[in-house]
Amino acid sequence: MEILERRIREDGKVLPGGVLIVDSFLNHQMDAALFLDMAKEWYRVYHDKQVNQILTIEASGIGLACMAGQIFGCPVLFARKQKTRNMSGEYFTSEVKSFTHGTVSSIYVSKKYLHPENRVLIIDDFLANGAALDGLISLVEQAGAAVVGAGIAIEKTFQPGGDLIRAKGYHVESLARIQSMGDDGSIEFC
Amino acid sequence: MEILERRIREDGKVLPGGVLIVDSFLNHQMDAALFLDMAKEWYRVYHDKQVNQILTIEASGIGLACMAGQIFGCPVLFARKQKTRNMSGEYFTSEVKSFTHGTVSSIYVSKKYLHPENRVLIIDDFLANGAALDGLISLVEQAGAAVVGAGIAIEKTFQPGGDLIRAKGYHVESLARIQSMGDDGSIEFC
Repeated sequence: MEILERRIREDGKVLPGGVLIVDSFLNHQMDAALFLDMAKEWYRVYHDKQVNQILTIEASGIGLACMAGQIFGCPVLFARKQKTRNMSGEYFTSEVKSFTHGTVSSIYVSKKYLHPENRVLIIDDFLANGAALDGLISLVEQAGAAVVGAGIAIEKTFQPGGDLIRAKGYHVESLARIQSMGDDGSIEFC
Repeated sequence: MEILERRIREDGKVLPGGVLIVDSFLNHQMDAALFLDMAKEWYRVYHDKQVNQILTIEASGIGLACMAGQIFGCPVLFARKQKTRNMSGEYFTSEVKSFTHGTVSSIYVSKKYLHPENRVLIIDDFLANGAALDGLISLVEQAGAAVVGAGIAIEKTFQPGGDLIRAKGYHVESLARIQSMGDDGSIEFC
């Protein structure tokens, strides 16, 4: 997606170790107008797939997912990284290993909001090793619901997540696909 | 706001101890169309106040804040509850006591994204004891930016936060103001 790639080139910052900082428009400060365009692009891809629910994970997926919910006209659910008193009832849960933070954590969604008749589009900001996306797919499948596919903002194709998840037969649509990032700060898109 | 109050009556659930569960449409599953209507209501109130930034706190404020960003046409910033490797540079920080979870935690925003020329509208899902809103106001003022006001989804007026913050001179606009909640599950709006 041209405007997203341009934005990454202009405002993204490459740190050593394959870290891309996009906190000026994606995952700390957020550009809602850009998010809306991104949601429209996912709609172009998935509009005929009877999507009736969007699923994401807190925190930085939520803004993108809400825009998708607006465009698809369906509810948005976000997986929580902690059980809270404000979530009632029973949960589906799965484990997510964060390569960024070096931790393994559990994620939760209430069983009240994932049902076998749901056709779920998973939205997230990054796809690298695929741990978060794997965890979200597991939640949907525990509920007996269908994973229609995934809409990702930025995929790092030099990390294995996208290939692994596509090899299992899931449709993953990433709006910007980064092939390599150089120590000089350069970014190559696929 | 009529449609929000009706939704709270229909889908909200009162638990003992003044806890209101609205996880079917506000803070776990989210109704993006409703959020857009709420953002339009905040715009009606604040449209002539030269708002040029929306500030919220992860996680459940993010969806509302993104819709506000779309309507106000300005960037959205969310305070993080942890410093992460994906946030670069230096931070403004403040402490937030959670009465719900019985904890004190720090919140962070990057100094890169809060500037003295900013006119900030703070958005959040709940206002009860006012701790989160106080913490967000502190972040804005550390930056020398202006707090235009706050847009809150649900205020519990039987808890002191709203009165305390208004007494300091801040404009707080809550779309649903709950006066009391009964042990029988009843909800009285102001």
